[in-house]
Amino acid sequence: MSVFTPVTPEQMAAWLRHYSIGALTQLEGIATGIENTNYFVTTTHGRYVLTLFEKLKSHELPFYLNLMAHLARHGIRCPRPIANLDNEYLGTLNGKPAAIVTCVPGKDIAQATTTQCATIGVLLAEMHLAGASYREQMPNPRGTQWREAMLPQVLPFLGADEAALLKNEMRFQSQQSLDSLPRGVIHADLFRDNVLWNGGTVGGVIDFYFACTDALLYDVAIAVNDWCLVNNSNDATLDRTRIAALLNAYHEVRPFTAAERDAWAALMRASALRFWLSRLHDFYLPRPGVLIYAKDPRHFEHLLRQHIAHATNLRELFMPCL
Amino acid sequence: MSVFTPVTPEQMAAWLRHYSIGALTQLEGIATGIENTNYFVTTTHGRYVLTLFEKLKSHELPFYLNLMAHLARHGIRCPRPIANLDNEYLGTLNGKPAAIVTCVPGKDIAQATTTQCATIGVLLAEMHLAGASYREQMPNPRGTQWREAMLPQVLPFLGADEAALLKNEMRFQSQQSLDSLPRGVIHADLFRDNVLWNGGTVGGVIDFYFACTDALLYDVAIAVNDWCLVNNSNDATLDRTRIAALLNAYHEVRPFTAAERDAWAALMRASALRFWLSRLHDFYLPRPGVLIYAKDPRHFEHLLRQHIAHATNLRELFMPCL
Repeated sequence: MSVFTPVTPEQMAAWLRHYSIGALTQLEGIATGIENTNYFVTTTHGRYVLTLFEKLKSHELPFYLNLMAHLARHGIRCPRPIANLDNEYLGTLNGKPAAIVTCVPGKDIAQATTTQCATIGVLLAEMHLAGASYREQMPNPRGTQWREAMLPQVLPFLGADEAALLKNEMRFQSQQSLDSLPRGVIHADLFRDNVLWNGGTVGGVIDFYFACTDALLYDVAIAVNDWCLVNNSNDATLDRTRIAALLNAYHEVRPFTAAERDAWAALMRASALRFWLSRLHDFYLPRPGVLIYAKDPRHFEHLLRQHIAHATNLRELFMPCL
Repeated sequence: MSVFTPVTPEQMAAWLRHYSIGALTQLEGIATGIENTNYFVTTTHGRYVLTLFEKLKSHELPFYLNLMAHLARHGIRCPRPIANLDNEYLGTLNGKPAAIVTCVPGKDIAQATTTQCATIGVLLAEMHLAGASYREQMPNPRGTQWREAMLPQVLPFLGADEAALLKNEMRFQSQQSLDSLPRGVIHADLFRDNVLWNGGTVGGVIDFYFACTDALLYDVAIAVNDWCLVNNSNDATLDRTRIAALLNAYHEVRPFTAAERDAWAALMRASALRFWLSRLHDFYLPRPGVLIYAKDPRHFEHLLRQHIAHATNLRELFMPCL
């Protein structure tokens, strides 16, 4: 349940008077999501999403809201923040920073086809190109420092074999440099549940609250690690055809560089490591009072093991792009 | 025919590479409109409208494009300009200033119901409230100066009776002051053909190229003079129920002031005069080479005569709002 801060229809109707989006007709709490309070807000003009930010602070939010507005004005399909009569995206409701965004149409999908993987490749490349003119910066909150902080917290819960893998991978990643890679604003969480499909086309990308400034290729690796899995694979196997479709489609819009080819295998591992760590943390150290959908951390452990075992394959898969 | 500057699919496909809205799948000239070249541009992501500006200059266009973007970010349904990879709404195509905007869904309607008139009242008031934070200014290009310039040009074509009416009305209007009225950005051309309907709701307002800074109430008068006509009226009769619906719906969102009540009858006349003058000019002095849909100027002459004859009625209709 994601309504941590209840909003009554009366409060919502009053709040909407500071906007130009009509009068409230329906207010409905959204049960998914574990970070914020979300409501579907239906007005005489259409459907919107209200978010009350439970963890992020007012000074942190402009980066995300302005980013969505920036991408939307470039034609990227994503929630568009609605400005209030003070011309601000961000307001305060029941003591929490709050914003209204447009409701993106469509549903997420459980399994992606090769064509859908290609569509995601185009989408990511277009987001990266459109994001190039975005001025604001945000260091990756799940970057090196976070990784180092996670390690001692999760190690006590691991068996010897897992602990060795984790420590070795941390060492390997600390030796990699991303300095030569094209950087910019990335979504950093473009999993299947963050893209809504409207028939065969993308209705929109959602959940920009991990977005940050980092290597563009890292965003691609995160997406490939989720979108290109073999259907119903129990051992986190990636599908070569889907990977090739996503990478080639991306490359058509924003051509990869030679430095990106060289970094690809390591970034695929970095992405698996990042989600392995966060899932381990969510699994063994859940926040008190939060009923979390604790996902099995072993999925990303398996993925990481495969990436290490098949580094040459990964690299070869990237070759046709260049 | 409104394609003055042809664009080939090859040129369009190349131009689209500066955007993040996918690849061209169809390009189709739009046959309506007499000021600009317009195309429907369908890409792998959706449908857009390309406009090549034939009269307006590059330095004049940001006012209109930024206005549409401003209103859209407030949730007003209107075309949203798409920024290119240089983060600009305005580019150059085949030597003309050019912009791509989202395609507003729906169709215009020939006759408005009372409910639709109320919807227009809400829409106008919301546009005026959302426009209050718009910083850019634009004097009304169809204001006093333009009126004075039109008079000697059209007088030679008029009979004695019409000429007397026109001169008297010009004198009357020159004695009115709008100084005490709330001002802001207005659409200034919100006729039935500039609102597209999607079922019962507004898909969007289009054609902002007469937008300017003027008395907000003038925008209401322009809309009432068109939306509230009695169905198939040959003598430009307005319908009291529709007027009341539009005014009351507006008033609910942005309450009228006492000064606006006092100015109402005169502004209804000013609006009829403005369109009578422009239609006279288009009718008797069409631009060479332009096949214009010359609309009968007498419609607005009739409307003006009625407003003069029924000034008290007009004023009374406004009263229930206050």
